[in-house]
Amino acid sequence: MAFKVTPWKVEGKIDYKVLEEQFGIHDLHPELLERLKKHTGELHWFLRRKIVFAQRELPWLLDEYEKGNKFYLYTGLAPSGPMHLGHLLPFMFTQWLQEKFDCEVLIQIPDEEKFWARQNLGMKLDEYHKISMDAAANIAAMGFDPKKTRIFLDTDYAKTLYRQAVKVAGSITYSTVKDAFGVGNDTNIGWIFYTSMQAVPAFLKSVEAGHNVPCLIPLGVDQDVHFRVARDVIGKLGYYKPAIMHNMFLPSLMGEAKMSASDKNTSIYLNDTPEIVEKKVNKALTGQQDTAELQKKLGGNPDKCMVCQYYKFLFEPDDKKYEAIINAEKKGTMLAGEHKKDLAKRINGFLAYHAKRVDAVRGKMDQFLAVD
Amino acid sequence: MAFKVTPWKVEGKIDYKVLEEQFGIHDLHPELLERLKKHTGELHWFLRRKIVFAQRELPWLLDEYEKGNKFYLYTGLAPSGPMHLGHLLPFMFTQWLQEKFDCEVLIQIPDEEKFWARQNLGMKLDEYHKISMDAAANIAAMGFDPKKTRIFLDTDYAKTLYRQAVKVAGSITYSTVKDAFGVGNDTNIGWIFYTSMQAVPAFLKSVEAGHNVPCLIPLGVDQDVHFRVARDVIGKLGYYKPAIMHNMFLPSLMGEAKMSASDKNTSIYLNDTPEIVEKKVNKALTGQQDTAELQKKLGGNPDKCMVCQYYKFLFEPDDKKYEAIINAEKKGTMLAGEHKKDLAKRINGFLAYHAKRVDAVRGKMDQFLAVD
Repeated sequence: MAFKVTPWKVEGKIDYKVLEEQFGIHDLHPELLERLKKHTGELHWFLRRKIVFAQRELPWLLDEYEKGNKFYLYTGLAPSGPMHLGHLLPFMFTQWLQEKFDCEVLIQIPDEEKFWARQNLGMKLDEYHKISMDAAANIAAMGFDPKKTRIFLDTDYAKTLYRQAVKVAGSITYSTVKDAFGVGNDTNIGWIFYTSMQAVPAFLKSVEAGHNVPCLIPLGVDQDVHFRVARDVIGKLGYYKPAIMHNMFLPSLMGEAKMSASDKNTSIYLNDTPEIVEKKVNKALTGQQDTAELQKKLGGNPDKCMVCQYYKFLFEPDDKKYEAIINAEKKGTMLAGEHKKDLAKRINGFLAYHAKRVDAVRGKMDQFLAVD
Repeated sequence: MAFKVTPWKVEGKIDYKVLEEQFGIHDLHPELLERLKKHTGELHWFLRRKIVFAQRELPWLLDEYEKGNKFYLYTGLAPSGPMHLGHLLPFMFTQWLQEKFDCEVLIQIPDEEKFWARQNLGMKLDEYHKISMDAAANIAAMGFDPKKTRIFLDTDYAKTLYRQAVKVAGSITYSTVKDAFGVGNDTNIGWIFYTSMQAVPAFLKSVEAGHNVPCLIPLGVDQDVHFRVARDVIGKLGYYKPAIMHNMFLPSLMGEAKMSASDKNTSIYLNDTPEIVEKKVNKALTGQQDTAELQKKLGGNPDKCMVCQYYKFLFEPDDKKYEAIINAEKKGTMLAGEHKKDLAKRINGFLAYHAKRVDAVRGKMDQFLAVD
């Protein structure tokens, strides 16, 4: 089945195995996970459940780490509207890595990216700046250590970023960007230039330190293309190429491959009210049979059930409890209505907790934000 | 005869009349000069001799001025090496306008431009920064009022510039840049993006003021293309389109259309020693006959004589004295050797004076330089 994964569009049912081959990225195989576990003590459920499923040069990064060469983390988000649950994945994982490896973290919020890539939305740059500041608070609230975390909006940090992006841009031709991102004659020149800005934080700590510092980038797999382009250039500039860990997308409630900020009904936003969450979850696609009777008789399909998927991705970190949910779905002992009600409760619990953390962090954003 | 004028290459013998039509720019006709003179009291020799020969929307700018709506000036230079005499023209003229109209002046030194446009030179961005700082001192030394002049290097002022460039870039497509600048598949994405950075100072004062402020850009005519692209975009963003005044190029000593920073023997650098200046001037193309005898008999051609041209452009502001030089050339009463010796003396006098002004200004560059 045909599918397409780019930073601007995700279409079709993704075969992540095929994607690995297309992108030239590698499995997070069991030996590698074991090696990681030696340092972290435990494995995040994203790793246990292959939600973080692939990597570039993680073995090299661990070699360096084991030689005493500490790495830093870099991730980011280019918002086009309020944040939804799917946006949280790389940040949850990055925060976990920060805790386990005691790492510095750079978080880029490129407020110009969607301005360039989504000109059709007609939003002004100032509006992107505003939603980006809001994203910064939501991200900081994920539990990052303010002493070791630097969050920056591109237009506020452009003196630092642009000087380095100039070097990157000098080594990327138009054909490369055309092939990698599918830009063309009608594309604006900002969008064509943009990938050089996204490359910078992958070697910025090396520039600042005056010597090479390894970098690990946890990201949604659609962002890999930026680094397929940038890794060679970064190497040419004399810096370490970054290592990468790729996560899958949180599917939409209706089963589309990626929760999308623009589909308001099938995505759960961080600022949705409990009532809206209940309504949306109630309409979710499930793997259950057409009637309660058939469901009790034949059981459901957890792979097709978005409720199960949401437990898998975010709302049941405990493997045993998660297994119990899956089994109840398979055996048909849990009916859709009950199943959805439970999930909505879990989501609302999380959103309430998150909102508190955002409130707590708003007053101290200057500890996180880097501004030139 | 075929000729070509782009910001990166000037080839062939330029017919400035044809160029006006190609670019869609307008004559600085006598009525317009008279109108200008009402405000300035006198006309700069660049205007009297049609060295500043064309304009865009100067009548509109004067309308605004006469309504009490003061304008600011914007010009710049993208250095690829030490400055030569030809680089001074827009700055001399801008400084004169500042004095006459009591204007604020923005001077952009895009240290990334040649890094992108001249990748073949293999120079590092840091080297461009260094020669740009040197250019800044040479420019400040032209007599600009430190209280009303802001000089900035793009990489040091990127927080201010990039935020605005983002808006410009969003409204310029790749095809537009391809057609205007002749970029292609092999062009790096920095070069493609660059014109958005050059557009910014043409409306920056309006952004800062919170209301529209007219802008006049004195520039070498090869730079007009940037504003052919940017003027529409600037208008679309809600700002006044800038007015422009175009100067011709100082020819090389051998008669090429434009003194070039890369042709070391036929360009006079601001840091050339008196001996080198004498040597270079001695080899200059003149309009004189092959022998002293023939010259005395037939006279020379001042249009073809680079010595006469240098007097016209820079070294004899007094029209009567300039006429005398031209007549001596025409009548054959002045021989090439003598002619050249006099010019070398004038150039060396100017360079010594300029060097003193540069020395005086070096310690107070922080009064001129704007850094984010």
